[in-house]
Amino acid sequence: MDIIVLNRNAAEKDIRHILKKLEGKGLKATISRGTERVVVGVIGDTSKITEEEENAFRVMRGVEEVMRILKPYKLASRDFKDKGTIIKVKGKIIGGKKIPVIAGPCAVESWAMLISIAEKIKAAGASFIRGGAYKPRTSPYAFQGLGEEGLQYLAAASKKTGLPVVTEIMDPRDLETILKYTDVIQIGARNMQNFRLLLEVGKCKKPVLLKRGLSATIKEWLMAAEYVMSKGNHDVILCERGIRTFETATRNTLDLSAVPVLKQKTHLPVIVDPSHGVGKWDLVAPMAKAAVAAGADGLIIEVHTNPAEAMSDGEQSLKPDAFKKLMAELKPVAKAVGREI
Amino acid sequence: MDIIVLNRNAAEKDIRHILKKLEGKGLKATISRGTERVVVGVIGDTSKITEEEENAFRVMRGVEEVMRILKPYKLASRDFKDKGTIIKVKGKIIGGKKIPVIAGPCAVESWAMLISIAEKIKAAGASFIRGGAYKPRTSPYAFQGLGEEGLQYLAAASKKTGLPVVTEIMDPRDLETILKYTDVIQIGARNMQNFRLLLEVGKCKKPVLLKRGLSATIKEWLMAAEYVMSKGNHDVILCERGIRTFETATRNTLDLSAVPVLKQKTHLPVIVDPSHGVGKWDLVAPMAKAAVAAGADGLIIEVHTNPAEAMSDGEQSLKPDAFKKLMAELKPVAKAVGREI
Amino acid sequence: MDIIVLNRNAAEKDIRHILKKLEGKGLKATISRGTERVVVGVIGDTSKITEEEENAFRVMRGVEEVMRILKPYKLASRDFKDKGTIIKVKGKIIGGKKIPVIAGPCAVESWAMLISIAEKIKAAGASFIRGGAYKPRTSPYAFQGLGEEGLQYLAAASKKTGLPVVTEIMDPRDLETILKYTDVIQIGARNMQNFRLLLEVGKCKKPVLLKRGLSATIKEWLMAAEYVMSKGNHDVILCERGIRTFETATRNTLDLSAVPVLKQKTHLPVIVDPSHGVGKWDLVAPMAKAAVAAGADGLIIEVHTNPAEAMSDGEQSLKPDAFKKLMAELKPVAKAVGREI
Amino acid sequence: MDIIVLNRNAAEKDIRHILKKLEGKGLKATISRGTERVVVGVIGDTSKITEEEENAFRVMRGVEEVMRILKPYKLASRDFKDKGTIIKVKGKIIGGKKIPVIAGPCAVESWAMLISIAEKIKAAGASFIRGGAYKPRTSPYAFQGLGEEGLQYLAAASKKTGLPVVTEIMDPRDLETILKYTDVIQIGARNMQNFRLLLEVGKCKKPVLLKRGLSATIKEWLMAAEYVMSKGNHDVILCERGIRTFETATRNTLDLSAVPVLKQKTHLPVIVDPSHGVGKWDLVAPMAKAAVAAGADGLIIEVHTNPAEAMSDGEQSLKPDAFKKLMAELKPVAKAVGREI
Repeated sequence: MDIIVLNRNAAEKDIRHILKKLEGKGLKATISRGTERVVVGVIGDTSKITEEEENAFRVMRGVEEVMRILKPYKLASRDFKDKGTIIKVKGKIIGGKKIPVIAGPCAVESWAMLISIAEKIKAAGASFIRGGAYKPRTSPYAFQGLGEEGLQYLAAASKKTGLPVVTEIMDPRDLETILKYTDVIQIGARNMQNFRLLLEVGKCKKPVLLKRGLSATIKEWLMAAEYVMSKGNHDVILCERGIRTFETATRNTLDLSAVPVLKQKTHLPVIVDPSHGVGKWDLVAPMAKAAVAAGADGLIIEVHTNPAEAMSDGEQSLKPDAFKKLMAELKPVAKAVGREI
Repeated sequence: MDIIVLNRNAAEKDIRHILKKLEGKGLKATISRGTERVVVGVIGDTSKITEEEENAFRVMRGVEEVMRILKPYKLASRDFKDKGTIIKVKGKIIGGKKIPVIAGPCAVESWAMLISIAEKIKAAGASFIRGGAYKPRTSPYAFQGLGEEGLQYLAAASKKTGLPVVTEIMDPRDLETILKYTDVIQIGARNMQNFRLLLEVGKCKKPVLLKRGLSATIKEWLMAAEYVMSKGNHDVILCERGIRTFETATRNTLDLSAVPVLKQKTHLPVIVDPSHGVGKWDLVAPMAKAAVAAGADGLIIEVHTNPAEAMSDGEQSLKPDAFKKLMAELKPVAKAVGREI
Repeated sequence: MDIIVLNRNAAEKDIRHILKKLEGKGLKATISRGTERVVVGVIGDTSKITEEEENAFRVMRGVEEVMRILKPYKLASRDFKDKGTIIKVKGKIIGGKKIPVIAGPCAVESWAMLISIAEKIKAAGASFIRGGAYKPRTSPYAFQGLGEEGLQYLAAASKKTGLPVVTEIMDPRDLETILKYTDVIQIGARNMQNFRLLLEVGKCKKPVLLKRGLSATIKEWLMAAEYVMSKGNHDVILCERGIRTFETATRNTLDLSAVPVLKQKTHLPVIVDPSHGVGKWDLVAPMAKAAVAAGADGLIIEVHTNPAEAMSDGEQSLKPDAFKKLMAELKPVAKAVGREI
Repeated sequence: MDIIVLNRNAAEKDIRHILKKLEGKGLKATISRGTERVVVGVIGDTSKITEEEENAFRVMRGVEEVMRILKPYKLASRDFKDKGTIIKVKGKIIGGKKIPVIAGPCAVESWAMLISIAEKIKAAGASFIRGGAYKPRTSPYAFQGLGEEGLQYLAAASKKTGLPVVTEIMDPRDLETILKYTDVIQIGARNMQNFRLLLEVGKCKKPVLLKRGLSATIKEWLMAAEYVMSKGNHDVILCERGIRTFETATRNTLDLSAVPVLKQKTHLPVIVDPSHGVGKWDLVAPMAKAAVAAGADGLIIEVHTNPAEAMSDGEQSLKPDAFKKLMAELKPVAKAVGREI
């Protein structure tokens, strides 16, 4: 349902023009005449009105504002599906009572490093292993990832530990390769509106972990999920990882209120990445606990055996011991809010 | 006129409750029933509905959203007064074809410094002298201004040059003193929502230069102007001075689009402070020109004879020679957009 | 300690000039010559260098950047006082193991309403009662508070329940009156940089609850605390209440990472206001739990017996029953992070 | 050159460890011991230190902060190339005294529409025609562009009018096709950090118009240009198109100060897109003039013969007559700042 607000200079002719256009689309209208504005309420199924058609009304003579009441996303909405989506990956569950933790290094650097981390996070209670083989780096001169070799290490580490793999895709041309090795496909923050990539992963059968863009609104984020879902893949996991604000004390501002907001708006599971959210290892533990208390369905945490030598994001990585300690500390917090970890 | 959107779970009882509440306030309603939402359009003079009453509707059962169409400001609105406000101060005009330039040091530091600057900006074509006697400084350990002594210097410089004075007020307790010396009262960005101070200057007979708050929306800024105007003082000059964003290459982000937006929404004159907007002296000239091209009714520019020794904001001050050069360069830009300088 | 970076065009003469200026201030320097830049490291007690003097270096010939290593706040810093500050108010403690909850209506509206809320929050376990007698409202036409009458109600409710009072000051001229009735003086977000007000409350003997400004950095916030402390009042409680971002799904973005960041930087207690942070009552509970999990030393929560009729901020107020339920749910979360509530 | 700041708890052992690590990389250091901090200034060619190596220092014991003085971009920097880059495309020049205007519809919708617009903008003085064949739309249900058919129309319109073509690429898989028809390849805001796409267009021989990301800092934007240039394509045109802020009166906040800032930092030409920057057609003209006054090297403006029926962004498109009027009005502004249009 759309609402069209006319300005005080709108003529009767303008109103009639609008009503006629609405009729042409099979819609009816009610008119509310205030002392200074006229408001047209549209009646009927306006969900078929495209963004283009809506914009057309926006520039008609006499129109001051056009408001859309219906959310622009459908498949991702709680209106469409009331019950929370539960995603199963090789025996692990995302969206259930138990809160899975995805852990691992930012980038896969070597087999020795990866397997060492994999075994330690497994022992500490992680449910998934993460690691980047293709890395989006701000500088073209920085380490860009090991590519397929990195994927092979991930798959091998997964085989050895039983932890399913989460890894990032940056380019639709890599999809076929990545699908051979990963269990969950991650879309990074910088690609949240890489629409072509979204459509491609939407055609896959594997779950998609969709990170929030650096300055994406919750609505845009859900529209990105809708892109994936529109192609048939309904297994989308939303991941809050901090938004860009004026504050420089942290790398980003972790928007934990996005968790309960999303729980109202969508049936998709919502997880939190405190490592990227704050960007400093000694702030990760309190924010991980806060995320669980806020209702997160999962966590994604960077762990590295030797942060000082990490090829990417060492600053925000926990050492295995700190991760183990955090996992223990998270248990009572999860229990306090009726969950398990 | 307000619009009330009910969610899909709203019962007929909820709708009746809302209609009854509206009736109680002398208002009528039209109801538009869509497939997923019900929209109530309110008919009548809703401008009397207070923010509190509006919020009350917001928490009624079944209500998803309440939208206000009418702007919350009245006296400041173009709807209220179509013709642009022209403010006259000792023979100088703000809001006319000619673009006045307000220049001077950030803080008044000494008589010798002030009179030297005053004479130079006058020679270069400035219309007003500015200078702070009470300075809002981030640090309690920084120079806080000369107080009344600074005001005396300003008044003396004004007497000698004929340039009216613009100076800032920070505390309602200083109003009486400041009024003895100044021609225009400035409200700084940090005090844009110091509502008590706004009400006090609203009772004065002298024009108020109201800077935009660091993160104030244009609507909030106009509401601040409304505070002043609600007490009878309609001579408010709006001053864009940059907003806070994530960008750190400039001190603030100068929002020049605020100029044409305000020209549509309000009849009040709009001036621009490129010095605070960018915070670096070598960016002031291009942004001053851009402000004039965007339609600004005036400029406020920091000038200092010796920026390297300035007690405040030396980094963004022009030397008198650079100011003179800028004044010359601004003339053809003003002419190009049908103005004079 | 400051670092001065010279650009590649800096001449030996420029470097000598800088060294001489440093010497004049009793400081020494080391010079690091890179292939493209020269870096001057200043040796000695640079804490005495004022902002003005620092800026003077900034505009010297050849200088590209001046960086200050020392934090601009001193009294508020953990470097100054390592142990966390504990504030005692009529037997209640802020900054200890137990997490006090400050609850009450946004604005004091009537005696009947206030005492009803006071008794209910007391029964639910609140430690302080809050309520505004002077209200900073965006609109001059909105309810501005009951003034001294409201303060009298607060004091009476406090006497009856034993809950100390927290109330906001907006104007230095109200200080004397407010001090007669309140136990803790609140500085609201819009006044965080009302420097005159900060200096005035700095001269008081009562604790100051200092809310973070809408777009204040953590550094600016600590500088505001420093303003208060510089006048002798070291009992400052910092209150995170959400910052302004592009996201519109919530009223503000509650920056919970500010809690652990502040715990590192300052010894002052840090509390969280989830009600203003999110602006919607049904998001308050998850964010209150998250705040406790993140390490907050206290909470401030809006409670109203009849939100639909509240004169201010009804949208974000909990009803007493919801507050009671939240208090019960917070207990295990507090315990999970080694605290009590 | 990097600066390493140690905290007050750093031991001599920690300092020695750092010095040894620097030596291992062929670098020397100077040490400045302040009363509270120790600062290590690194001497030598630190441009070879990768981001990873820099981060390694960040997590060493005793380190509080690591600062990089050298800009992370090289090829894009004014330090690398002092003279402004001039880009020639089929007889048109970008980066010279004359300011080219790129005009056309947001999306190519039909041959009739496109050729009609093309002839009108040519007559009004535009230098390039723009139009999208692949459209990044927020909704998967919105018009996504005509694809290759749209490109064919663009090429045909170009042939008829002599105006070179600017069109957007969204997916590396489209590059070969797009190169057959376009003269300048546009990278949209949402793809500014689509690093794989940047590397692909970096291998092309055609100029790249690189829009600023919605929340990209100027430094990140220049790093994106560096990605393109690192593959050999040095013909990059930077396009400011508004950043995301809290202000909702405009679609984005057009950051015109980015123009003079970039003129200092880079030799690449900088153009401005006021249509996306403000998102409302009636604000385009003042902001276009402001952009020219601020020193822009070009403009990109949306023009549509029938905005009310446009399939994308009709709200911000000028009709041909308004565009013609604007072109006439821009001439004196350009002249006023020593340019031509």
